[in-house]
Amino acid sequence: MNKQIIRYTLGNILMILAGLMILPLIVSLIYQESWVNIASFLGTALVTFAIGFFLSRTKLHRRNFYATEGFTIVSLSWIAISFFSAIPFVVSQQIPSFVDAFFEMSSGFTTTGASILNDVEALSHSMLFWRSFTHFVGGMGVLVFALAILPKAESASVHIMKAEMTGPTFGKLVSKLSSTARILYVIYFVFMMITLGLLWLAGVPFFDSMLLAFGTAGTGGFGVLNGSIAPYDSFTVEMILSIGMIVFSINFNLFYLAFIGQAKRALKSEELRWFLAIIAGSVFLIALNLISTSYGVTSAFRDSFFTVASIISTTGYSTALFDHWPLFSQLMLILLMFVGGMAGSTAGGLKVSRIMLLIKAAWAEIKRTIRPNRVVTIEYEGRRIDAKLVNTVLSYFVVYVLIFVVAVLVVSLETPNLLSSFSAVAATFNNIGPGLGIVGPSQNFAHFSPLVKIVLSFIMIMGRLEIFPMIILFAPNTWLKRF
Amino acid sequence: MNKQIIRYTLGNILMILAGLMILPLIVSLIYQESWVNIASFLGTALVTFAIGFFLSRTKLHRRNFYATEGFTIVSLSWIAISFFSAIPFVVSQQIPSFVDAFFEMSSGFTTTGASILNDVEALSHSMLFWRSFTHFVGGMGVLVFALAILPKAESASVHIMKAEMTGPTFGKLVSKLSSTARILYVIYFVFMMITLGLLWLAGVPFFDSMLLAFGTAGTGGFGVLNGSIAPYDSFTVEMILSIGMIVFSINFNLFYLAFIGQAKRALKSEELRWFLAIIAGSVFLIALNLISTSYGVTSAFRDSFFTVASIISTTGYSTALFDHWPLFSQLMLILLMFVGGMAGSTAGGLKVSRIMLLIKAAWAEIKRTIRPNRVVTIEYEGRRIDAKLVNTVLSYFVVYVLIFVVAVLVVSLETPNLLSSFSAVAATFNNIGPGLGIVGPSQNFAHFSPLVKIVLSFIMIMGRLEIFPMIILFAPNTWLKRF
Repeated sequence: MNKQIIRYTLGNILMILAGLMILPLIVSLIYQESWVNIASFLGTALVTFAIGFFLSRTKLHRRNFYATEGFTIVSLSWIAISFFSAIPFVVSQQIPSFVDAFFEMSSGFTTTGASILNDVEALSHSMLFWRSFTHFVGGMGVLVFALAILPKAESASVHIMKAEMTGPTFGKLVSKLSSTARILYVIYFVFMMITLGLLWLAGVPFFDSMLLAFGTAGTGGFGVLNGSIAPYDSFTVEMILSIGMIVFSINFNLFYLAFIGQAKRALKSEELRWFLAIIAGSVFLIALNLISTSYGVTSAFRDSFFTVASIISTTGYSTALFDHWPLFSQLMLILLMFVGGMAGSTAGGLKVSRIMLLIKAAWAEIKRTIRPNRVVTIEYEGRRIDAKLVNTVLSYFVVYVLIFVVAVLVVSLETPNLLSSFSAVAATFNNIGPGLGIVGPSQNFAHFSPLVKIVLSFIMIMGRLEIFPMIILFAPNTWLKRF
Repeated sequence: MNKQIIRYTLGNILMILAGLMILPLIVSLIYQESWVNIASFLGTALVTFAIGFFLSRTKLHRRNFYATEGFTIVSLSWIAISFFSAIPFVVSQQIPSFVDAFFEMSSGFTTTGASILNDVEALSHSMLFWRSFTHFVGGMGVLVFALAILPKAESASVHIMKAEMTGPTFGKLVSKLSSTARILYVIYFVFMMITLGLLWLAGVPFFDSMLLAFGTAGTGGFGVLNGSIAPYDSFTVEMILSIGMIVFSINFNLFYLAFIGQAKRALKSEELRWFLAIIAGSVFLIALNLISTSYGVTSAFRDSFFTVASIISTTGYSTALFDHWPLFSQLMLILLMFVGGMAGSTAGGLKVSRIMLLIKAAWAEIKRTIRPNRVVTIEYEGRRIDAKLVNTVLSYFVVYVLIFVVAVLVVSLETPNLLSSFSAVAATFNNIGPGLGIVGPSQNFAHFSPLVKIVLSFIMIMGRLEIFPMIILFAPNTWLKRF
C-alpha cells in the first residue's frame, strides 16, 4: 500500500473542495446574508485548504499505483468531502447536529437527495446553493472532476476512474484519460445549462432553476421548496424535468457518439432500448393501477410518467405523494429503484446493463438445463460476452444483496414496518432519496437515531461507488499488509 | 420429446397414488366415519387408477430419455398428484372449493404446510390423515418413491432423481440408482417412526403423533389442532419436534455415511457446520431482540429455538405467534425462510449449500477486485469448486429472485402491506407454510382470490422442484419442437 500517494491525492481533493466553497460564499454576498454564513464558508474553506495543503506536501517515494490505492483514494475522498462540506451547516447552526449535516452532504455528493430537513425553505440561499451544488459535483464524479481540471493527472488514474464511473465495465472515450474526463464534463455542463435555461424560460425563478438543474443533472433530487416539484404546479416544468432526468440517466458515451456524428450507432444501443422499454412498461402498468383506484386517466399517466422518470433516474423529485399509491404501484417503484439508470450516467441503482446481464445469465442457465451438452453463450450489445464478466456481474449482485439485507436488519430496529425499512435502504443504497412508508416523499430521514443516520450515510457512499471501494477501504488487509 | 415415456411414467405414478389412497380409506373405516368419506376415497382411487392404467398402456417406441423428459415428467407428476388427491376433499365437501383443495394438496406434497382452512379441527380423521400423509410422500420425493418400489426402474431415471432431489449438486450414494432411492427411504422411514414413538411416549395421542411425525419428517407443517403445536403446551413435545425438524433438514447422505461407520467424515461436513452456526446465531439474535421487549429470558430462548428450527427447516409449526414479534425478529425469520435446510434433505429454501456458495462467490469477487491479476478459487467441502458450478448457483439465484419478484407483484394486488405479500411468497416459494402479516401463524391463505391461490400453488411446486422443471414444462419449445 502506497500511503504517500493517498495522502497526496486526498490533499489535492480537499484543496479543490476549498476552492469550490467560494461559490456559496459569492451567493451569500449576492443575497446579503448575515456575516455568520459568510464566516462559515470562509472559515471552512480556509481550514479545508490548509489541511489539504499539508497533506499534499508529502514526498512521493514511489509512483506505482494499483487498484487498491485507486479504490482507497476514491472512498476516502468521498467520506472526507462529505465531512468537510458539512461544517458550514453546523457552524452557521442551520443544521445544528453534525451527524445530520454529514448525512445531508453524503446524500448530496452521492446524488441521493435523502434529507433530514423538516423545513427546507428555512435554509438561507447560500446553504441551499451549497446543498444542491454537491449534486452537480458528485454526479459525474468528484475525482473525475479533479482529473479533468488538474494539469498533470497521473497516468495510473484509470483505477480512480474505474472506481468512480458507474456500470459493470469501463471504457475510455478517447485514448487519454484526462481528455475523456474533460469531454464528459463538457457534455455534462452543457446539458445542465440547457435544463437551467428551459426551466427559467418556463417561469421558474432563476435561483430555483439553477438548483433544480443541479439536482436533475446529478440525478440528485434536493429541491428548493418543501413540496419538491408539486408547488410549481406546471405541466411544462414537469415535462422539462422528466425528460431531463431521463437524459441524465443515459450513458454519456452515447451522447459523445452522437456528437462525433455516430448518432445511428448510439440509437442502436441495446441498453438504451431496454432502458426506454422499462420506462414505457412501468409508466403503463402504474397508470393502469392508478386508474383502477380513483385517478383520472390523464393525471394517472402524468403522475406515473414523472414519478417513473424520477425514480428510475434515481433523482427522487416528487409531484404526487406516491407513498399513498396502491401497494402494486409502490412495489413497482421499489423495483425501479433497484434497476436505476444506464451505466456511465449520473444515475444510481444496479444499472440497466447489469439487470440485462443478470436476466441473460438466468435465461442462459435455463437453456443449459434443458440441453446440458450444448454451449450457451451470452450476447450483449451485439458481442459475445466473456464468461468472466458474467460471473463478475452475478457476484456483484450477490454482494449487493448481502449488504442490502444487513442494512435492512439494522434499519428495522427503528422502523414500524417492512416497507419503511426496505425502502429506506433501497432509496439510499440506490441513491434515490425518498422511499416509502415513514421515509416517503412527504416525510424525511430526520426521525432516525444518529447511528442509523451514519449507517445510511455510508450506505449511500457505498451505493454511489458501487460497493467495492468502500469494502476495500475497511478491509484490514488494505492497511496492515505492505504489498 | 419422447411423449410416450412421459405418458407411461405418469400413468405409473397415478396408479401408485391410487394405491396410497387405501391408507386413508382404512383410517376412515377404523374411525367408523360416514360412508361419504369412504366413498370419496374409494371413488377417487378407482378413477385415478383407471386413468393411470390407461396412460401406462402406451407403446414405448423409443426408450431414450433426456433431461427435458425427466424434468417434464417430474413437474407434470407433481401437478397431477396434487390434482387427483384434491378430489376426495371436494367430493366429501370437507373442502368444497376445488381450487382450495388443490392449494391444500400442492401445499401438502410440496411439504409447504400453508393452509386455506380456517378450522382444521373440523376435518374428519381420514381427511386429516390424507392431508398430513402427503407431507410424508412429498418429503423425499414422489418419483424417488416410485424408483424405490418399482421393480425395473429406468436406467435413465437419473434425470428424474436430479429434478426431485434438492440442492445444487446430486450424488448417488451407491452405484445403483434404485438402491440409492431405497436406502434414502429406509433412513427416512425409520427416523419418522422414531419421531412418532417419542411424541407418543411424551403423551401426545397416537393419531396426533403420527400426523405430527409425517409433518416433521417431510418438514411440512400441517398440524391437527387449530393452534398448531401451542395447545400441547409441553416443553418435551417442543424439544422432540425442534430437534426432529433440524434432523430432517440435514443432508441424508450424512446419515448414510454415519450408518456405514464414517460418522467422523459426516461431522466434518462444511455445510453441516454452517447450518448449525446459522441456527445458533439466529436463535441468539432473536432471543436477544425478544428480551428487549417484554419477554422473559427462558421463554425468549425457548420460543426462539422452536421457531428458528421450524422456519429454517421450512416446516412451519408454531408455538409462539411470531407475527407479533418485533420487526427485526420477523425479518430474521424471513431471512431464514430463504436459507432453508441442507441440500439432499426434505427441507425447502435456497439450501445452505447454495447460500455458502453465493457468499463464497461474493467474497472471491471482492478478492479479485483487490488483486485483479491473482487467480481466486472457491473451495467447498475441502475441494476446489469448478467455475461452472459457481456460475450455475449464481444464475439459479437470479432466476429465483426474478420469479420471486413477479410473484410478489401479483400477490400485492390482494394484500394490504409489503410484509404480507413478501412473506406470503417467501413462505410458499420456500415451502415453509405460514408467513407474516395477513398470512401469519394465527391466520391462513383463505382470503386470497382463486387466481392468487393457483399462482401460489404453482409457486409451491416450483419451489419444491427448484424451479427448472416447471419452467421447462411451460416452455413452448418442450412441446413444439421434436428433438
